[in-house]
Amino acid sequence: MKIFIFGGTGDLAARKLLPALYRHHKAGRISNETQIYGIGSRQIDTEQYRTDTKKHLRNYLEASEHTEQSLELFVLMVTYKRIDFNVAHDFHLLQKDTNSNNRNLFYLAVPPSFYKTIADNLSEQSLIGPSSSIIVEKPIGSDLLSSIEINEALACHFVENQIFRIDHYLGKEAVQNLLALRFANTIFEKSWSSSAIDHIQITVAEDLGVEDRGGYYDETGALRDMVQNHLLQILCLIAMEPPVSIQSESVRDEKLKVLKSLAPFTSDNIAVNSVRAQYLEGISKGEAACSYLDEEGVDSKNQTETFVALKLEINNWRWSGVPFYLRTGKRMQSKSSEIVVRYKTVPHNIFSKGAHLEPDQLVLRIHPDEGIDLKLKTKRPGVSGYDLENLPLDLNLNEYHEIGHQDCYERLLLDVIKGNPSLFVRRDEIEASWKWIDNIINLWKSEDVPMEEQRFHFCNRNKVWQHST
Amino acid sequence: MKIFIFGGTGDLAARKLLPALYRHHKAGRISNETQIYGIGSRQIDTEQYRTDTKKHLRNYLEASEHTEQSLELFVLMVTYKRIDFNVAHDFHLLQKDTNSNNRNLFYLAVPPSFYKTIADNLSEQSLIGPSSSIIVEKPIGSDLLSSIEINEALACHFVENQIFRIDHYLGKEAVQNLLALRFANTIFEKSWSSSAIDHIQITVAEDLGVEDRGGYYDETGALRDMVQNHLLQILCLIAMEPPVSIQSESVRDEKLKVLKSLAPFTSDNIAVNSVRAQYLEGISKGEAACSYLDEEGVDSKNQTETFVALKLEINNWRWSGVPFYLRTGKRMQSKSSEIVVRYKTVPHNIFSKGAHLEPDQLVLRIHPDEGIDLKLKTKRPGVSGYDLENLPLDLNLNEYHEIGHQDCYERLLLDVIKGNPSLFVRRDEIEASWKWIDNIINLWKSEDVPMEEQRFHFCNRNKVWQHST
Repeated sequence: MKIFIFGGTGDLAARKLLPALYRHHKAGRISNETQIYGIGSRQIDTEQYRTDTKKHLRNYLEASEHTEQSLELFVLMVTYKRIDFNVAHDFHLLQKDTNSNNRNLFYLAVPPSFYKTIADNLSEQSLIGPSSSIIVEKPIGSDLLSSIEINEALACHFVENQIFRIDHYLGKEAVQNLLALRFANTIFEKSWSSSAIDHIQITVAEDLGVEDRGGYYDETGALRDMVQNHLLQILCLIAMEPPVSIQSESVRDEKLKVLKSLAPFTSDNIAVNSVRAQYLEGISKGEAACSYLDEEGVDSKNQTETFVALKLEINNWRWSGVPFYLRTGKRMQSKSSEIVVRYKTVPHNIFSKGAHLEPDQLVLRIHPDEGIDLKLKTKRPGVSGYDLENLPLDLNLNEYHEIGHQDCYERLLLDVIKGNPSLFVRRDEIEASWKWIDNIINLWKSEDVPMEEQRFHFCNRNKVWQHST
Repeated sequence: MKIFIFGGTGDLAARKLLPALYRHHKAGRISNETQIYGIGSRQIDTEQYRTDTKKHLRNYLEASEHTEQSLELFVLMVTYKRIDFNVAHDFHLLQKDTNSNNRNLFYLAVPPSFYKTIADNLSEQSLIGPSSSIIVEKPIGSDLLSSIEINEALACHFVENQIFRIDHYLGKEAVQNLLALRFANTIFEKSWSSSAIDHIQITVAEDLGVEDRGGYYDETGALRDMVQNHLLQILCLIAMEPPVSIQSESVRDEKLKVLKSLAPFTSDNIAVNSVRAQYLEGISKGEAACSYLDEEGVDSKNQTETFVALKLEINNWRWSGVPFYLRTGKRMQSKSSEIVVRYKTVPHNIFSKGAHLEPDQLVLRIHPDEGIDLKLKTKRPGVSGYDLENLPLDLNLNEYHEIGHQDCYERLLLDVIKGNPSLFVRRDEIEASWKWIDNIINLWKSEDVPMEEQRFHFCNRNKVWQHST
């Protein structure tokens, strides 16, 4: 097996890909015969690349994970190839090392604008065979049209099950655990529908601003950067019907059905059911931080949102009438991702006529700690009558396991190696989600949905629909 | 208000009733004007009774709960009356202290053989008025016929809502919490039926043997002593339909419906669906302990069981086809009471074709610690595939509250004072449960169900039907 990392001198390779490959090698999940090619435009040789790789590994691995000897053993598998992605002839350099009968993995850790060029050049040099795979990062386009272009460019040379579109959220333990919780336990799935659930909230809050990515971000915004991929993918796992199996295409078939069932926003409801906002100046981690519009590379004319909240519905038998709230933003009070499932209140309060009973709440925490909270009403101990209170049934997954170093990329790379695409996003999923997102962006413009000031710092679980005022 | 404790020098008064009244007085729930009469046949005067009462309170209250002054203040409310329960004329002694217009509470902490006599004599002296209440302890009879006799004797002088039949299990926090969990939370009740539940286990295990009650116990046995009252009452709370309200008669109406729905055992199934056994000699709390048949006062001809296990069904829409396992015994490995709700496995295992998935399990712990365990399957963290494992969502009620001194009798006495009978057992409940129990006893005899040797020391949650072999 040969692994080609385009963007081999980049940040993703250093922080995630090389450490993940190192761990797989150490654990015996990839053999000593595996060859890893770092591919980039920098003027260095393999010797230098190996030295750099060892440096990165020392930085990003935990101390207990490596010795000088183990690093040395790993980098023996690593070779550097200097290639200008735009120059077809350069790909010749790869040809003497491989041929299309090999199991070649092409990891494109480069901007999407290079995807087509690289795929074309690989093909021209006959480097792509039936057992090759190509791995691409988000964003797959910035709207439906551009995503189709990218998908078409890849489809010219690869069939769909050779294409691995990474959404690293799908590699997270807590996200994977959603399927286990739903489909391995009777107690949740029995009430996992509009019959028992009032609404569901999916929140991904980031504490940082755009940092040094102002220029890129200003072309993108929270809706495209986060909702189109991560939040919609989580929504799919939360909302989907039981798949035929956990393997292969079944999970993706069910996710696609959810995406196709999303009620499109309309000019009548877009202003009521969506919020877009930009962060103001404030304090971030104890230091003064500028407003979004004052960030380097940001153009106020672009009207780019750093916060988005959507109230959406899924038009199918299971979820009709149950609102889903998706919320994500930068410069929130803390970095936190969670899913809140709010149950309906009991149909009749036998304990106190007319009084309101707090509904049950299931919280699936994805970040910073992974865990499950089920808030239940119990009787407050006491000699007299039924005084109810909320107490949590709590499970902190970190208490049970050393999750420590485990990383989305480690899992996802292993799945690529094994040829298992179930945790990757299929073309039809990408295009269905862009279609739904495009409609929102168009309506925001055509209906003049105001850009609000993001004064609030966190979405309160108990206030599902919190405006910025 | 006047409270008459028949059996005022007895063990229950010393350990439970006087401490409960002391606490209510201290908390201001009963006023200084309340008069408490200890009534017994011992030749002592009020001075002596007050001294004894203070001694008991020092013994059974926690140190922080009393001062010499607070004890002194309490015993000023206490008077002793020496009465021979069989002598009508003696009750004259009470007459000068009360009249039937008072709110008189008569607590019969005496053997049931005195119930009729005391009630008759109270009536003859015109001590019973419309606002009087009578409180009686188990056993209410030893079979249907004798329970009817007792109930009739009380009914001659009291209407049903003046009669408070105590089952102290109904005063336990964790037992009361069953109703809160079921009817204040959507998540459980939605799946609280044969659609999601495989079976339910109710276990009350005692670690002691019969101790010095061999003679009494040999006439009674585990079925009458524990199942007829405590276990069937817990069963009712677990199985009943939502009541109209938590107040008054509604809860008891629903409990009665459960008792009436119990499928009677038949000669065809009694030997398969019931086990009776007697404990053998062994080690109890580190010391050698004799077998049941060697206990003082035990006659082997009586064939009295110290352990009973029943597999029963409830014939109604909710529970049809769901077995309930009731188990109780003496000289078990530990003192422990709990309810285990075992859910069905998911209808289709998507994670591993053909493999068995452990079912979800909800454990409601009553004793020694009160709490809730919900065992869920989660994904074992790891980079490769879905490896499922059971982890508990856990709630230990004691962690949230100083439950410390709280006592069933404290709550139940307060309910009597308030005239709220919902936690007491109604006549029709008693008689319905005896009818069902009588049938078992008759079948054990007529079908020659063997008396087994109780070799096992604990009922394993995971082995629902554990024979002694």
